[in-house]
Amino acid sequence: MKGNRRKFIKNTLLGGIATSALPLTSCGTYDEKGDSKNPHLDFSRLNEILKQPVFKKEFFSKPVIIKSIELLNFNENYLCRIRSEDGVEGISVGHPFQQKYLNSLFINRVQPFFIGKDARDLESLMENFYFSNYKLQGLAIWIPFATLEFAILDLMGKISNKSIGQLIGTIHNPKVSIYTANGDRDISAEETLERIEKEVEESQAKAIKYKVGGRMRRKDNPVGRSEKLTQLIRKKYGSQMVLYADSNGSYTVDEAISIGKVLEDYKLDFYEEPVPFDEYEETRQVSQALQIPIAGGEQEPSLRQFRWLIASDALQIVQPDQFYFGGMIRSMKVARMAEIYGKVCTPHMSAGGLGNLYVMHFVSAIPNAGPYHEFKGLSKDLPIVSSTSSLASENGVFNVPIGPGLGIEIDPDYIKKHQLIKA
Amino acid sequence: MKGNRRKFIKNTLLGGIATSALPLTSCGTYDEKGDSKNPHLDFSRLNEILKQPVFKKEFFSKPVIIKSIELLNFNENYLCRIRSEDGVEGISVGHPFQQKYLNSLFINRVQPFFIGKDARDLESLMENFYFSNYKLQGLAIWIPFATLEFAILDLMGKISNKSIGQLIGTIHNPKVSIYTANGDRDISAEETLERIEKEVEESQAKAIKYKVGGRMRRKDNPVGRSEKLTQLIRKKYGSQMVLYADSNGSYTVDEAISIGKVLEDYKLDFYEEPVPFDEYEETRQVSQALQIPIAGGEQEPSLRQFRWLIASDALQIVQPDQFYFGGMIRSMKVARMAEIYGKVCTPHMSAGGLGNLYVMHFVSAIPNAGPYHEFKGLSKDLPIVSSTSSLASENGVFNVPIGPGLGIEIDPDYIKKHQLIKA
Repeated sequence: MKGNRRKFIKNTLLGGIATSALPLTSCGTYDEKGDSKNPHLDFSRLNEILKQPVFKKEFFSKPVIIKSIELLNFNENYLCRIRSEDGVEGISVGHPFQQKYLNSLFINRVQPFFIGKDARDLESLMENFYFSNYKLQGLAIWIPFATLEFAILDLMGKISNKSIGQLIGTIHNPKVSIYTANGDRDISAEETLERIEKEVEESQAKAIKYKVGGRMRRKDNPVGRSEKLTQLIRKKYGSQMVLYADSNGSYTVDEAISIGKVLEDYKLDFYEEPVPFDEYEETRQVSQALQIPIAGGEQEPSLRQFRWLIASDALQIVQPDQFYFGGMIRSMKVARMAEIYGKVCTPHMSAGGLGNLYVMHFVSAIPNAGPYHEFKGLSKDLPIVSSTSSLASENGVFNVPIGPGLGIEIDPDYIKKHQLIKA
Repeated sequence: MKGNRRKFIKNTLLGGIATSALPLTSCGTYDEKGDSKNPHLDFSRLNEILKQPVFKKEFFSKPVIIKSIELLNFNENYLCRIRSEDGVEGISVGHPFQQKYLNSLFINRVQPFFIGKDARDLESLMENFYFSNYKLQGLAIWIPFATLEFAILDLMGKISNKSIGQLIGTIHNPKVSIYTANGDRDISAEETLERIEKEVEESQAKAIKYKVGGRMRRKDNPVGRSEKLTQLIRKKYGSQMVLYADSNGSYTVDEAISIGKVLEDYKLDFYEEPVPFDEYEETRQVSQALQIPIAGGEQEPSLRQFRWLIASDALQIVQPDQFYFGGMIRSMKVARMAEIYGKVCTPHMSAGGLGNLYVMHFVSAIPNAGPYHEFKGLSKDLPIVSSTSSLASENGVFNVPIGPGLGIEIDPDYIKKHQLIKA
């Protein structure tokens, strides 16, 4: 990692975090093992981190046997409800767009595996579950698993009177500053700016993420939109607004570097997925050629592959998705691996539903969180309240519910409308 | 790539293939770009290959509009039946173990995308289908896609009077020599050998693959089974029998090298997945330390990531799975990439059902096929006949049906028993 790069991250991204929390040790590059033309990446420190437990089993003095796991549906809203033998209940809301395709995997693979097990063993159960399902690695198995994990964390939080964040770490960020994310493409830069203005006004966010390029190697439409929009946003909001750009894998290496230099000129703070997500070598090339931090990892389903992205310095900001990656325990391992390389974790937010609430609980517990996190709001269809949070952006800040568990109440009448999905 | 390694592959693996078919150009290692400690892999030749079309659209002078796509079920046997507007029919049999979990993805994502499209555009349609579904990359989207592709290839074969192999390449291997695959673990080496003896007697195979290690980092059971079994098999069958070992990701790098040296001592011809499939860097380390060719790629869902495994010389034998990887067109691109690096393609065989027949058609059309390919037989539940093949091993050789399409007849009464699966 270049010295300048590290300094750049330190100055611009970790503004809100005590830098002493981050041991900015020398970052990994290819070491001297192997042939001189075939150097090896050294994963030894990362492998050690992967062995460290995340879930705080020590909060529980007696077994918590999972008596039932139900998948419920009402108008394509999916609830996972679990009950312990002692009658305590935990609930999660499934992924709004993908869960409906994955019900069969949930019912046939996840549900039978966890029934009758001690929820305190969540972490070792996850390992065994993976062993039985590794061929399905990807959203197919990690989204259903995450749905279960969120319900278990809610249950365990209720038993121990801890928030979800406390079950997987220490609360570093009880309040999370948000960025607003604009998803538009294929409209003019001017029209996009108008929409962004509304989004910023509504959220009072102090940071904005917007789309550049055409997504997955498609062309910018209209031509030149990305450069124009970058210029317009910076002009509109001045130097105080923090800006991020997301290309969703739009570019070749040369194109990505060229646009990246524009983003640097306009002082953006990160650049997400400059090339297609599975072009790791190219991601690293772009990263080496630019000073702006490169963010990515939303699509990565493997803890082992994340090691490469981190140790090779392909990414400076890791973005595991709480659903796609299979929940908070696995995501915490990614954050920890990033931390010892002086890198930042800004988790990806894929979902409506309660997706953003899961992200906020996760962010509450990571020491190396980026200064701003995506907030798209929680689904307006869900009748939920919290006694410790407005569950909304207040002047650009989200107060993470204190707990127990997820720290919300879902209207019981709404839950009753849901029907059990059978195998 | 080491000189010895290349020679080893050439001598032992390509026995049956004219070596002139393989341009054994210098193999890729890390080049001089980037920092001296951060060299880059050069994918330029592989990127060129990925742009070359596979499907032979030129056989078709007029559009083949897909009028209907049906997913049918009888006792958990799944058929995909498609019909063109001209009334021609193509049929495929879905993946026997995984399809049942993926019906919803087939019906909601695959089916609507392809209805009304011109099947001659299969290759560009696949690109667009991927664009719309890339977040699901993995078995979840590639198995349903492969199921459709196999039915389209059957349909297009019937229209053009070509075999599936002819639609995706040139017929290099009308007869495919088979290896028999023993899947046992957790029984003694002696008991395993007894089973292998029966399998060899039944198939008359001239090559054997067997399991070493405990799968995905689990321990060998009983301890020492892998070494003992290796010794017993070689002793039983002598030097003429070709032997392969599959670890399914059992080992650490050090363990994998240690066992690999035993396999070299007993003159095995390949060593499959020595470390967990997503440990690419470690796979490369094992590969560099050993002379025995390393096989892998069954779990890899990405064409872009296969470039790394090939260009870094992590693998000498690539094994895309016809179902897991999303069909024969994508798999052919992997075989072609391997070919210009002087590597061999021995596709993985995941399925019962007709899985092995799809593999055989694919093998028929690749110039750099390994000398032996896995054959587990076709499902005995399927009432099928072929006028050009016994669909069985004859003295260790499988005659690939000549076509048209898949080159078989499925009993119409059996097809009629299947019920349409609705959304």
